[in-house]
Amino acid sequence: MKSRGLAVKDPKSALEPFEFERRELRDNDVAIEIAYAGICHSDIHQAREEWGPSLYPMVPGHEIVGSVTGLGRAVTKFKVGDLIGVGVFIDSCRTCPSCLKGLQQYCENGNTGTYNGYERDGKTIAFGGYSNNFLIDADFAVHVPKNLDLTGVAPLMCAGITLYSPLKHWKAGKGTKVGIIGLGGLGHMGVKFAKALGADVTVFSHSPNKESDAIAMGADKFVVTKDISALKPLSRTFDLILNTVSAELDISAYLNLLRLDGTLVVIGLPGKPYSVGAGVLLGARRSMAGSQVGGIPEIQEMLDFCGTHNITSDVEVINADYANTAYERTIASDVKYRFVIDARTF
Amino acid sequence: MKSRGLAVKDPKSALEPFEFERRELRDNDVAIEIAYAGICHSDIHQAREEWGPSLYPMVPGHEIVGSVTGLGRAVTKFKVGDLIGVGVFIDSCRTCPSCLKGLQQYCENGNTGTYNGYERDGKTIAFGGYSNNFLIDADFAVHVPKNLDLTGVAPLMCAGITLYSPLKHWKAGKGTKVGIIGLGGLGHMGVKFAKALGADVTVFSHSPNKESDAIAMGADKFVVTKDISALKPLSRTFDLILNTVSAELDISAYLNLLRLDGTLVVIGLPGKPYSVGAGVLLGARRSMAGSQVGGIPEIQEMLDFCGTHNITSDVEVINADYANTAYERTIASDVKYRFVIDARTF
Repeated sequence: MKSRGLAVKDPKSALEPFEFERRELRDNDVAIEIAYAGICHSDIHQAREEWGPSLYPMVPGHEIVGSVTGLGRAVTKFKVGDLIGVGVFIDSCRTCPSCLKGLQQYCENGNTGTYNGYERDGKTIAFGGYSNNFLIDADFAVHVPKNLDLTGVAPLMCAGITLYSPLKHWKAGKGTKVGIIGLGGLGHMGVKFAKALGADVTVFSHSPNKESDAIAMGADKFVVTKDISALKPLSRTFDLILNTVSAELDISAYLNLLRLDGTLVVIGLPGKPYSVGAGVLLGARRSMAGSQVGGIPEIQEMLDFCGTHNITSDVEVINADYANTAYERTIASDVKYRFVIDARTF
Repeated sequence: MKSRGLAVKDPKSALEPFEFERRELRDNDVAIEIAYAGICHSDIHQAREEWGPSLYPMVPGHEIVGSVTGLGRAVTKFKVGDLIGVGVFIDSCRTCPSCLKGLQQYCENGNTGTYNGYERDGKTIAFGGYSNNFLIDADFAVHVPKNLDLTGVAPLMCAGITLYSPLKHWKAGKGTKVGIIGLGGLGHMGVKFAKALGADVTVFSHSPNKESDAIAMGADKFVVTKDISALKPLSRTFDLILNTVSAELDISAYLNLLRLDGTLVVIGLPGKPYSVGAGVLLGARRSMAGSQVGGIPEIQEMLDFCGTHNITSDVEVINADYANTAYERTIASDVKYRFVIDARTF
């Protein structure tokens, strides 16, 4: 399938227009006309080879929403015209214990990334979502509720599920107190989901000027963390804290905010390891855990939840020719709260 | 009550014979004739002021077993002659959420240590178990099953419950695979409990010569960790790993051994923080948690479990005048597997 989009050709080059060929439609594939593709900070890390060797040319993009334009002959899950979403992986081994539980994000044999690698045949390059179209096995795509503003849907496929999954797994809900560290592309989704789940939500942020946004999104409390001593009075008051910040921070100071049996979940990948004092864990049987995105069944569950609660990401819609500027602004955290590229402009 | 035992007078002095006065028997107190007092590595840390300021003169000892010799007039829980055990705390606030759950080890107002501090009146020095007798509020003492070899019971009160509690909390049992890092005073109790609970047990140890002991205690597998690469083939195979080692180790290499949703529990207090890579947590939704001893109800549950399964600590029984040598041997890990002082020799 002929495609056009944006690609980087090496770690030092900018995104530029790129025409390429996707594979032919297979029996269980759906063909997608992309409407919007989100820009995730991890796109930039991979485009610039900051996370180990990358595969070039690279078409980034793993927050994809669009509509179905074609079906392989075995597909029954979708029909032409359906709204459809694609996230950070497009396949997995399908046989390991994680995959059998629908937790393909933890595939023991490694799932297949949406870009920056090969498909499971080991030779077809997986090109991502900064493109006018896409092809995916129907088992790895999800239905998008019709009532949502489509511009804010693409980021749900990565930023959204990355927050939704740990909130559900660690049982955020009525009567629980949840903290979200960082109000960016990830954090703002955490606030919306935690609130919709019924939790009491506190945002921890370095930026005092984000308070009004946080409250508007549903936060009950906003704590400015420029001075880390602001945390002390909150000792032993949280059930669950999600750290969306990849910059180095004093993680023990946040662990200390957890109640008995509370959990702090890290969802970013900072360059340095965390420094974790044993004492703060022992003091209240606290846990520090990690979580990444969600499996296909949970992504569908999240989208249905979004449909019910009318939740989307706050986005700035841009044209393809703005993508390089958007990269710089994403690095500078100068975006409210996620860029999505209008796919008609590729 | 007149008492004699061993005390240190300052951080640099050795244990020496000490005569002192315990408080009078209160209404809810039991008086105890001590039979055996265990030596815990934490006694040494506190005697030598390695964990912050200590209170001198200090009578260490928080692994106590003996028999009841006297009762306050309100006591119904014990009768004279009962076997009785005392652990690492002798009181707590009794009103915070943790205490109300019987989890006095996590008392939010701080529980009262068995020694090296004041009782809750803020003025009565708490003298520990290296002594011929003891006084304690009956609510904070437990019954010891009669069928157990009493020499190996004292260490259950600290080393024992420190392992039993996390094994129970994180559901070690039939069908689960448990790893115990370190085969010392703590670790050997972990092996016995995990096995009795029905788990498959692997010991990780630097000391190849401990293998036969580990197997005799019930371990299914013994992994020598001098070369950390020995861990690699075990990636993603454990549900629960307990780290009993306070020396620095590559904790991420052990976290990597956990299956999806597995937990590594730290129960020692190393001098340095752990260095924890986020990636290993994210890769399989792993957790790192902390746990300390257990509450009074769980200590009783553990002793009953020990009675049923005939579990005690492996000990070397010593006389009081050997205690300073025992300290040096404990530091050198030259003990199989816990020293207990025969209280008749004080």
